[in-house]
Amino acid sequence: MDLLQAFEGIGTWSPHIVATVNDTDVKIVELDGEFVWHSHPETDELFLVLSGSLTLELAGREPVVLGPMQLFTVPRSVEHRPVAAPGTRVILIEAGGTVNTGDAQDPRFRPTTGTPL
Amino acid sequence: MDLLQAFEGIGTWSPHIVATVNDTDVKIVELDGEFVWHSHPETDELFLVLSGSLTLELAGREPVVLGPMQLFTVPRSVEHRPVAAPGTRVILIEAGGTVNTGDAQDPRFRPTTGTPL
Repeated sequence: MDLLQAFEGIGTWSPHIVATVNDTDVKIVELDGEFVWHSHPETDELFLVLSGSLTLELAGREPVVLGPMQLFTVPRSVEHRPVAAPGTRVILIEAGGTVNTGDAQDPRFRPTTGTPL
Repeated sequence: MDLLQAFEGIGTWSPHIVATVNDTDVKIVELDGEFVWHSHPETDELFLVLSGSLTLELAGREPVVLGPMQLFTVPRSVEHRPVAAPGTRVILIEAGGTVNTGDAQDPRFRPTTGTPL
């Protein structure tokens, strides 16, 4: 049930489920650097930064820069690219079954791991 | 987009929507003391403590005590009673349309306010 403990040893860009609410997953993920441009056609995706700094680059819009305890929901289907300071820790809230690379083909794909705490 | 700013002036036991993810609401709420026993027949309800201390009393189970950055999902239909230290700040994640007193009749009912940040 302790989020900070759950971050230990999960690596970067590898979302880890810590809780579920109905059909929604709550995940933790540690970010470092630039990810791939992608979208999730089936779900909104909320980013809540716990520590570090995260820039959400968004197709056709100004980027959103998030520091600790700031959040933003990327609407479904909106192309986005997360770019993070090393060791940035984030909570993700999105539909169950969402994959990290969305509709993109990229070697940084990671299967979601973890079970609710 | 700043959660800590959003807590200013919202009062206690009065959930305030800060984001939505598909049909799920993300709310902030400040708690103080004992609430009413109630359940939500239609939705799970996640409590993530940001500051303070929250005990979730649960029908037929041991209570769950949460400190900062600890979380717990109360499954739908499970009777529960939040009991919090003064000024405890919490994120709630639950289905859109959920009311704070669930199936209970209680003067502490508050309409959910707020729009996504």
